[in-house]
Amino acid sequence: MPFSTLCANGRDANTVYLDHNATTPVAAELAPQVQDWLSAWGNPSSIHWASRKPKLLIREARRSLAQMLNCDPLELVFTSGGSESNNTAIKGVFESLQKAVTRPSDARNHYVLSDVEHPSVRRTAEYLRERGAEVEFIGVDRSGFIDMNAYKEKLSERTALVSIMFANNETGNIFPIQDMARLAHEKGALFHTDAVQALGKTPVDLAALGVDLASFSGHKFYAFKGAGLLFVRRGLQLESLIHGGAQERHRRGGTENVLAICSLGAMAAHAGEIAARGEVMRQMRDEFEARVLAEIPGASVTGGEAPRLPNTSSLILPGVDGETLLMNLDILGFAVSTGAACSSGSPEPSPVLLAMGLSRAEAQNSLRVGLGWGTTPEQMARFLEALKDVVARVRAFPPETSITEVVHGPI
Amino acid sequence: MPFSTLCANGRDANTVYLDHNATTPVAAELAPQVQDWLSAWGNPSSIHWASRKPKLLIREARRSLAQMLNCDPLELVFTSGGSESNNTAIKGVFESLQKAVTRPSDARNHYVLSDVEHPSVRRTAEYLRERGAEVEFIGVDRSGFIDMNAYKEKLSERTALVSIMFANNETGNIFPIQDMARLAHEKGALFHTDAVQALGKTPVDLAALGVDLASFSGHKFYAFKGAGLLFVRRGLQLESLIHGGAQERHRRGGTENVLAICSLGAMAAHAGEIAARGEVMRQMRDEFEARVLAEIPGASVTGGEAPRLPNTSSLILPGVDGETLLMNLDILGFAVSTGAACSSGSPEPSPVLLAMGLSRAEAQNSLRVGLGWGTTPEQMARFLEALKDVVARVRAFPPETSITEVVHGPI
Repeated sequence: MPFSTLCANGRDANTVYLDHNATTPVAAELAPQVQDWLSAWGNPSSIHWASRKPKLLIREARRSLAQMLNCDPLELVFTSGGSESNNTAIKGVFESLQKAVTRPSDARNHYVLSDVEHPSVRRTAEYLRERGAEVEFIGVDRSGFIDMNAYKEKLSERTALVSIMFANNETGNIFPIQDMARLAHEKGALFHTDAVQALGKTPVDLAALGVDLASFSGHKFYAFKGAGLLFVRRGLQLESLIHGGAQERHRRGGTENVLAICSLGAMAAHAGEIAARGEVMRQMRDEFEARVLAEIPGASVTGGEAPRLPNTSSLILPGVDGETLLMNLDILGFAVSTGAACSSGSPEPSPVLLAMGLSRAEAQNSLRVGLGWGTTPEQMARFLEALKDVVARVRAFPPETSITEVVHGPI
Repeated sequence: MPFSTLCANGRDANTVYLDHNATTPVAAELAPQVQDWLSAWGNPSSIHWASRKPKLLIREARRSLAQMLNCDPLELVFTSGGSESNNTAIKGVFESLQKAVTRPSDARNHYVLSDVEHPSVRRTAEYLRERGAEVEFIGVDRSGFIDMNAYKEKLSERTALVSIMFANNETGNIFPIQDMARLAHEKGALFHTDAVQALGKTPVDLAALGVDLASFSGHKFYAFKGAGLLFVRRGLQLESLIHGGAQERHRRGGTENVLAICSLGAMAAHAGEIAARGEVMRQMRDEFEARVLAEIPGASVTGGEAPRLPNTSSLILPGVDGETLLMNLDILGFAVSTGAACSSGSPEPSPVLLAMGLSRAEAQNSLRVGLGWGTTPEQMARFLEALKDVVARVRAFPPETSITEVVHGPI
C-alpha cells in the first residue's frame, strides 16, 4: 500500500519528513489534476457557462467528503482551513446565542475547553472571555488522559459550548469525544471538536461521534493548503465569521477556493484505506518508540498510556535541548519538531506539554515525531540511528554550549 | 500586448468571457509554475528544511505586491480573499476600539459606508450595528457620483471608520478615495477602502491614496482563488478575525495558502502594464458603449458620467429582462452578468442599482459587461452583434413570455 507524495523543494530522496502533524506533503496523484481544476476558473456564483464546472466540482467534493465523514453534504461548510473553522464554530455559537436573547445575561455563556487545545481554539476562547464569556479549562495529565471528573463537574445548564479536540497535535492523544459530547448534550450544551489532526490518521464517523460542530483541514490530509471544513449539524444556527455573499448557503462569504476544495475532495477517495494505513504507521511508531526507550538512556514518551493517534510520538530526551536536536537532525535531512515553540520566534516551551505537567526542562527536551502515509520502515530505521547519534553528540557537549557550536561542530 | 489565459472547462475559442468583475480567468503563465509551488508544501512555520522554500516564496510575493501597491511589505496581510479582508478590516477596527476603552460608550462608534458597497462590507456593517454601532450610508447617484456633501456632514469626532470602495463592482464607478480619506482623517477617523475591483484595471498607489486599510483579491487579478490581501497601515492595531498561530505577525492565524499567495505574487510582475492595459480596455469599452447607445434603441449607461474603471459597462436595455438576456447570450457562448442578483437564487434586482436610483424595472433590465486583459476588439464586435440580435429577439416576444420559451425558441 505505498503512497507517493511530491518531493519537497527538489530535495533528494535522502530527506526524511517526520513532521506530518505540522503539514503533510501533497499527494502525488493530485498534481496531474491541477490543470483541469484550474481550467474551472469561473466564479461558482455566476450563472453562465464559466460557473458550471467549478460549481459541479465543489458539489462533488462536498459529496465525497460527506460520505467519508458520514454526514450530509449540506452539513459541510468549506472554509480556508482549520483555524478559520475553529474560529467560526466557537465565535459563531457565541454570537448566535447573544443574538437570540434580548439581555446578554440571559444567554448561556459558559465555555469549556481542554487545557491542550490548538491556539486557534485557545485564543478564540480568550477573545470570548474578553467579551464577557466564562471560559473554563479541563486538565490533561502527562499520561494523556483528560480529567473526566472535572469535566462532569464543570458542565452545567449555563454551558453554551464545549470545545475539545479529537486528538492533540503534539502528543496525538485522543479524547473520548463521543462520551464528552453526550455529557454536554445532557446539559443542553453544544459540542465542537477540532478534528484537524484526525483526518487521514484514524477514521472519523461524525454520526457516531454525535458532535454538533467539527473542524478539519485539507493540508493535514495530503491536499493543498487553503481548504478546510466545518461540519455544522443540520438545524444549527451559526452566525458567519466572514459575512458576505450567499456562498455556502450564507454560512461563509467569499468566492470558493475551487482548486484547494478539489484537492481535498479528491483525497476522500482514500477514506477506505485510513484504518489500514493507520495500523501500518502504528507498527512503525511503536517499534521506533520501543527502540528509543531501550537504546536512548532516560528517554520517555509523553501521553503514551492513553489512546493516541497511530502516527505521533512525543518524546522527552533528558539533557537534550529540543531546538539543538532539531537543528542537528535538520542538517542531516530529517524534519521533526520540538516541544519548544521556536516557530513563533519565542523560545518558550510548549504550553501543551506544560499543561500536561511536564517541567520546563522536560518540555524543552521534547521531540515530536509524526509519521505519514509515505513513511517507510527503512526511513524510521535511518531516523533512529541518526537520533541516537545526535543525542549522544549533544549530550557530550557541556550544557552551556551554544546551538551554533553544536550544529557546526566543535571546530 | 496580448495576454493569454487558461481556457475554461475545455470550452472552445468561440466563447467570449466578459464577466471579469466576477472573476478573471487564470493567467496562462501561472500554470507551468504550479508544480514548483506545490513542491513547497512544507509548513512555513516549521523550522526545518521543508519550511524554507514556502517561507521564501511568501516573502517574495509580499515584497512584489508591496512594490506594486507602494507600501511596506510588512503592511500587507495575506488572507483567503477579498471578503475576509473586508471583514477583518471593519470588525478589526470595531473590536480594537471596544478593547481600548473601559466603557463601550467611550469608544468612537460611528461607521460611514457608501450605499453601493459589496455585501462583504454591507453585511459586516449590519453585524456591527447589531453590536451597537451606529452605521450611516452615503448615497451615490445614477450618474455614479457619491454625495460628498452628505459625506462631510456625516463625518464627526464620533466616526470610527469610513469604508468606501475604490471602485464599484457593478458600474465600475471610482470614488474620490484620496479626498475622502483626508476628510476622515481630519476628524480622527480611520479609512478603509475595498479595492478588490481595482487590481489590474487601474494602478493603485496606497501611499498616494493615504488610506489606513485596503482590501484586495487575487482572483480578480488573474491569480488563483484563495488569496487576498489586507493592507494595514504601519502602527495600526487591529484585532484578528481569525485567532490562532503567529502567522502574518499574529494578525491572521492559519497556515498560509502558499500556492495561491505565489500566484498572486507572480501577477505583480505585470504592475507596470496596468495603466496601458487599462487604456486598451477603455478604448474597446467606449467604442462598444457608443455603438450600443447608437444601435440599440433606448439603451443607456449607468454611472457613465462619473469616473469609472476602464473595463466596466453597466447598461440598461429597456424592455429586456436581464436574466433572459443573460441566458440567451450564455447559449451563444457569451458570459456576462445582470443587475438582478440571480446568482443568490433570489430574483431581486441589484441593491446597488436600486440604491443609485434606478427603478426596479431598470435594474431588472440591466446588463454588466466586464472586459479583461485578454479581451480583443474582434470579441467585442462579435458580442455587440449577438447582443443586438438577442435584444431584438427578446423584445419581439410579448412581456409575459417565460424565460424557457425565449431560450428554446418559439416552438
